[in-house]
Formats: sequence, structure tokens, C-alpha cells
Amino acid sequence: MQPTITSYLDRLSMTMRISADRWLQAHPDELQTMLRFPLGWVDETGASYDRPAGKRIRPLLLLLCAEAAGGSSEHALPAAAAVELLHNFSLVHDDIQDDSDIRHGRPTVWRIWGKANAINAGDGLFAFAYAVLSEMIEVGVPAGVAGTVWQIFNATNLELIRGQYLDMRFETQSDVATSDYLSMIAGKSAALIAACAQMGALLGGADTQRADSFYEFGLHLGLAFQIRDDILGIWGDPALTGKSAATDILSRKKSLPILYGLERDARLKSLYQSETMTPEVVAEVMQLLDRLGASDYAKAQEELYVERAMDALSRANPVGAAAILLDTLTQQLLGRSA
Amino acid sequence: MQPTITSYLDRLSMTMRISADRWLQAHPDELQTMLRFPLGWVDETGASYDRPAGKRIRPLLLLLCAEAAGGSSEHALPAAAAVELLHNFSLVHDDIQDDSDIRHGRPTVWRIWGKANAINAGDGLFAFAYAVLSEMIEVGVPAGVAGTVWQIFNATNLELIRGQYLDMRFETQSDVATSDYLSMIAGKSAALIAACAQMGALLGGADTQRADSFYEFGLHLGLAFQIRDDILGIWGDPALTGKSAATDILSRKKSLPILYGLERDARLKSLYQSETMTPEVVAEVMQLLDRLGASDYAKAQEELYVERAMDALSRANPVGAAAILLDTLTQQLLGRSA
Repeated sequence: MQPTITSYLDRLSMTMRISADRWLQAHPDELQTMLRFPLGWVDETGASYDRPAGKRIRPLLLLLCAEAAGGSSEHALPAAAAVELLHNFSLVHDDIQDDSDIRHGRPTVWRIWGKANAINAGDGLFAFAYAVLSEMIEVGVPAGVAGTVWQIFNATNLELIRGQYLDMRFETQSDVATSDYLSMIAGKSAALIAACAQMGALLGGADTQRADSFYEFGLHLGLAFQIRDDILGIWGDPALTGKSAATDILSRKKSLPILYGLERDARLKSLYQSETMTPEVVAEVMQLLDRLGASDYAKAQEELYVERAMDALSRANPVGAAAILLDTLTQQLLGRSA
Repeated sequence: MQPTITSYLDRLSMTMRISADRWLQAHPDELQTMLRFPLGWVDETGASYDRPAGKRIRPLLLLLCAEAAGGSSEHALPAAAAVELLHNFSLVHDDIQDDSDIRHGRPTVWRIWGKANAINAGDGLFAFAYAVLSEMIEVGVPAGVAGTVWQIFNATNLELIRGQYLDMRFETQSDVATSDYLSMIAGKSAALIAACAQMGALLGGADTQRADSFYEFGLHLGLAFQIRDDILGIWGDPALTGKSAATDILSRKKSLPILYGLERDARLKSLYQSETMTPEVVAEVMQLLDRLGASDYAKAQEELYVERAMDALSRANPVGAAAILLDTLTQQLLGRSA
């Protein structure tokens, strides 16, 4: 039977649930609910819910890279589960930091259980991520590879902390250069995607050099992915994104096209800083962005990273059925309108 | 030269600082300050401060157990640094959760940089702890031992999450049994101390069974340590503890002697739940606790755990100069009046 995206995701789910039963067994019911809720396994009462939260792109990428490197995804399942848990940990804490009420169409953890519990639940998912990662040593990953993967996971986490710090600082900082922004999203969005590709490749038996090509593929894919997000946040079709038109302008987000404009136009800067975001202001901001060519700039940047990602991927020389799925996944991520 | 407590602490400091320079090098200055500040290395402007925060009992215990098991503390330094970082991570998040303003005589991280940054700084210390732990594989710890230590570290972190959850829940729960309380402090206070003794022993070359005796020693030491804290929080001498007399009663803390009383006396319960804590109420609470023998109960519990700790330690058969220092440390911890 040919593997499908669904078959990978099903095995991932099973791995995560078995690990949860193992590592969280001593936890009181309510605490277990706090940890399982953001994963989409239970509702807030602890009753079964079973609609996995999010697209699970990261673990999928990791599993596909392991097979595309020529190995089996068996060895990669613990790491895949770990990156998904890590991603969810960061969302739980993000939502507290940003005061966000809704995540994946459901109330956020802190909205249900309060901020103190949500901090602890996030910490719990972080600890759980590491616990699951350590299962590598039980499924037969060679000690040397397991050690390298562990070190990459560590360095990636510290990169995420850097990205998150910059993201929060930029919110109140008046002058943010597009180069600062790219450095921030390299940490916050791209580092984990890059690490997924690299760890997957190593767990699939790639040597360091080939794994580095996978890493570069992931890094540039992650950057392109974030820039696509930024483009959709301004010019996305509300009917497809499910968000208001120009949603990022309404929330004064400093995304790449905006920063490009702010660097170049004083009127835009004063609009963005001082005015209330009435429909008229939003319209004028959109006009200014168009005149400055912010959309073309962002699209060119996206294309640049897509090209680099594709170059790196071809150097990585992915093989087998997973290579085709990897290509499908990449096209889906980059071509998306939502 | 005979090793001294100071010589261990100096080597620990050096390990931590070298690791910080390595793992945090990409972090912006302000973020580095947020991570180094709670360790007592810098002040809030980033200028050198150099008064290590806290007593660093946990890493010390880990290093001593490694040598007392017959090994060298070289192999144990990364794990020792990791537990100290982990402890500090938990304090940074604790202070947010408890709205605490002061820690080790200085403002808490969230008081200086706000809660969103403090959540991220705590996460950073957590990630940093794991990064330093992974240095085990570079200093020559055999892969099998490193894997076991990693798994213990993981399980301990998940225990800490459980303890923290219970601690927060008990604050608002009206009926907390002394047995629930002991389960909570086993997670929150004793689990990490137990893991320190166990990981130290394993890194010092102990076999599983002997390491388990070290674990039991640490677990009961940790429980006795916490109960001593509880006793000092009510009957401690303000001149020695540096806190107000009956400080835990003023803050309505549900410590072991209090819970013992609450289980037994309705008047105490109503005083604790409804009245404002005037000096008269505090005096009546103290009187009731005395009449109920809460102090004797707590002291008997403390003694029980001390005995169990000492039994386990003698089964662990510590050797060499470290065995003597381990004994000194234990006596200091248990005999303390502050």
C-alpha cells in the first residue's frame, strides 16, 4: 500500500497518545485535560473530542524527510511527536502573552483555566515534548544520531525563545527594519520547520552534509511560509482565510509588507502610529502600500525563499514515495490562499 | 587538596557560565540579561552582579552523590548545572503565578520585564537547562547512562508540573487532606532533590539498585526539608528567618501543620477561611495549633522522613571525602533555623 499523508498522521496520533498515557499517568484528571485539550483530543470537561488541532505540518515534514532520506519513519516518530508538542507548548504560552481568546476555533487554555494554570500547562507540554523525544533511544535510533537530534532540538528551542522575544519587542518598538523582521521570523517560524527537516533526515540515516541541505530546505520553506502568511494577512480573500479583510492592518501588525512600507513612507508611519483604524484609514494604508509596491516586494521575497528552498531540496536528493509527498506538501504550503 | 563545598560551587558556576556563553550567544543583550538576572550573575541593566541566587543545594547534592558513588564529578557537572537552571526556571514561572514581587532580595523577573517576557525567560531557562544537560554526551558520559539520566530528568519535570498544579489547586480548595499535601510536596519539592541524588549516583557509576537508594535518600530528605520549611513558617524565629513571625499564617498558607489543624478543628477552619488576619486572629490560630499538637505532629513527620533518608543513605553506601560533605550538607539542611 502506498503511504498517504493520512497514514502518517494516524501513526503520529497513535504515538502521541501512547506516550501521553505513559508519561502523564500520574497527573490528576484536570491537569491531563489541560494538556490534552490544546492537542484537540478532549474538550474542556475532559470528554473525548478528537479533532486534532492545527495542520501538523511540522511532524509531517519530519516524517517525510526521514523517509525521503532513505530511512524508515519508525525511528522518526518520537521526534515528530516531540516537535508537534513543542509547537503546541509555544502556542499555549503565546496565547497568554498575546491575550488571545481563541485558538483553532476553541477558547484558549488560559481563557478556560486561568493564566497561572496555562503557564503550567504550557510547561507541561514542553516537558512532555522532551519526554517523547527521549523515546528515540527506545525505538532503536543509534546513540550518536539520538545525541545529535537532541542537540538540534535544544538549539532550536533556544532559537524559538529568541524569536518570541523579538516578536514581542517589535510590537512596541517604533523602528523595526525588514532585516530585523526576517531575523525574528527565522527564529520564530522557520527555525522549527528547518529543524524538522534536518532531524528527520538524520533519523532517516542522512549524513551531516545531506541533512544540512534538508535544513536549508526547511529554513527557506519556513521563511516563505511566513511571508505568504503576511501577504494573506493583508490581501487574502476573507471568504478563504476566514478572517476580516486586511486583518493585519486592523490589528496594526508589523508584518513584512507593512515594515517595507513604514521604512519608505512617513504618511504611512503616522497613520499606523497615531490614528484609530477606521475603514477610511485602512483604505488609505492599503492605497499607500499599493503605491509603494509592498505587495510586489513581499511576493518577490517569498519567491526568493521558495527558490532557495527548492534548490536546497534538490541538493538534498529526496528519494522514494516520500519525495513525492514532500513535493505535494511543499506545493500546498506555498500555493495556499488561506 | 581536600574538596570543599566552595570548590564544588565554583566549578558549577564556571560550567554554567561557559554553557551560557555557548548556548545563548545568538540572544539579544536584553534577553540574555533576563536569563542571567535570576541566576544572580547580572543586575537588571545587564551589569555584573555576581551573587549567586539561592543556596544551590540541588546541584551540590548531585555532585556530591556522584563522588560518593565512587565516580568523578566531571561527568556530573552538566546535569548539576541543568538542575540548577531547571530550579530557576520554575521560580521565574512561580513568581508570575503567585504574583510575587521579591525573590532572593531582588525584584522578580516579571516585576522588571513584565509577565509576557517573564514567561519567555522562564521558557528560555527551561530550554537552556536541557541544552546544558545534553553536554553530558560531550564530557564522556557513556551513552546508556546519559539516556537513563535524560529519562529521569524528563520524568522529574513532569512530576514538578504535577506538584505545581496541586499546589495552585490547594490554594482555593477548601478541603485538603494532609495526605494530598504530602503527595503535592513529593512532586513540587522532593522530586527534584530525589532526582539529583539518583542522577548524581548514576553519573558516578552506581548501578540501578544503588542509585535507587540514593533516590530514596533524596526523596525523604526533600520531604523533611519541606516540612522543616513549614515548621519555620509558623514557629521560626523572625530574627533568623528574616520573615515576619507566623508568616505562613498571615498569608493563609496551607502547610502541613495548618492542614493537620484544619482537619481536626472547626473553629480553626472558620478562622482560616473567613476572618481577616488581624494579630488577634493569628494569636488564636497559634493557640489552637498548639492545643492540637500541630507542631509535635509536624516535627514527628519531619523526624520520620529524616530517619528514612538516613536509612536509605546508609544503604547507598557513600564513600570518600564526598560522603563526609554529604553528611555535613544533610545535617545543615535538616538542622536549619532559617
